[in-house]
Amino acid sequence: MGTRETQNRILDAALLLFNAHGTAAVSTNRIAEHCGISKGNLHYHFRNKQEIIQSLFRRMVAEMDAGWYRDHLVPTLEHMAEMHVRQLQLILAYRFFYRELADLLRQDPLLRRRFAENRDRRLREIERFFRSLAEHGLMRIPDDEHRLRSIVDATWIISDNWINYLEFHDREVTIDAILEGYYEVLEVLRPYLCADPQQITQESYRTIERMAQRASTDPDR
Amino acid sequence: MGTRETQNRILDAALLLFNAHGTAAVSTNRIAEHCGISKGNLHYHFRNKQEIIQSLFRRMVAEMDAGWYRDHLVPTLEHMAEMHVRQLQLILAYRFFYRELADLLRQDPLLRRRFAENRDRRLREIERFFRSLAEHGLMRIPDDEHRLRSIVDATWIISDNWINYLEFHDREVTIDAILEGYYEVLEVLRPYLCADPQQITQESYRTIERMAQRASTDPDR
Repeated sequence: MGTRETQNRILDAALLLFNAHGTAAVSTNRIAEHCGISKGNLHYHFRNKQEIIQSLFRRMVAEMDAGWYRDHLVPTLEHMAEMHVRQLQLILAYRFFYRELADLLRQDPLLRRRFAENRDRRLREIERFFRSLAEHGLMRIPDDEHRLRSIVDATWIISDNWINYLEFHDREVTIDAILEGYYEVLEVLRPYLCADPQQITQESYRTIERMAQRASTDPDR
Repeated sequence: MGTRETQNRILDAALLLFNAHGTAAVSTNRIAEHCGISKGNLHYHFRNKQEIIQSLFRRMVAEMDAGWYRDHLVPTLEHMAEMHVRQLQLILAYRFFYRELADLLRQDPLLRRRFAENRDRRLREIERFFRSLAEHGLMRIPDDEHRLRSIVDATWIISDNWINYLEFHDREVTIDAILEGYYEVLEVLRPYLCADPQQITQESYRTIERMAQRASTDPDR
């Protein structure tokens, strides 16, 4: 088995176990056992749990990058709903990370720096998307740079915390629950969107329903 | 030393240690040692770490209740800035809880229920405050109950996560940093506030500066 393949198996197992039990309760030995490889073999690839977490974060960022780089080329409100669902799906896939975010970042300055860099890049991408919506007459964005940044930031904080929020309330991640989170984002944006609110809501519902169905029939997602 | 007094000393020590090192790294033995009491004495008051965390949460809710019950009687924009600072101060005092929130709640169904109840009560209080602002001509709130709830919820999610967000970015909790969080909340509310945005910003700045100075000269806060 090649190096890359072994590393991926280790990361897959770690992700599964971290999501199920939290990082504190999962040792590198347990990850090795779950992969059916020796402890020595695991430590040949990753010095410690921290390095595994860092690699999982890098993988998550790569998946984000794959989706986001051309969002501003599709400046529609339908696509905005898709962006929201895509981000929630990613958070779901790496939910241990979002559950333990504050603690993980506090313990690891390198991870903290990478997280901050990724976040800043994402916020700039969303700003770019909003400007693209504005150019197509779908949004009126404030002239003041700071105000625009605050609005983008607010929507991002809501998205980032929505899955945690559902867990806090013992709620499952259903289409309705995803939609509810998106309505909060829309509520923040509503004063700046040019389309009819009723129409936005209906389009968002259809988009989210369609994406959720696609996800449930596609085992790789 | 009375029961209540011992319990408070244990809780004070636990809070200090949890904030400094995280709950996973702090044993009940270490808390007992820090108080200068025996392990047996600590376990007479609290069966385990979970019970200590639950008690700290109860204490935090009691402190919230003490501040919040009459907010709707002071429906001014100045007071709204005060509410924001007060909440951030509480989060700072109990920051381990907000850092580890998702993980702590996942592990403890009782805590999860109490957290959800407290959150719902708070959101209703903020709605009440907003309605009071509206009655005094300071705010135009949407007729739709769901929309109002989404707006309140959005501001709450931002406040709840602001201190974590500063930590993620290696930033200190300065007046400017607190103010920046409040501007994001204001940005969400801006389309619904009737006063001049410039005036709101200036008033908020003065209020937050005043409260921060009071906090720095009052060692009990």
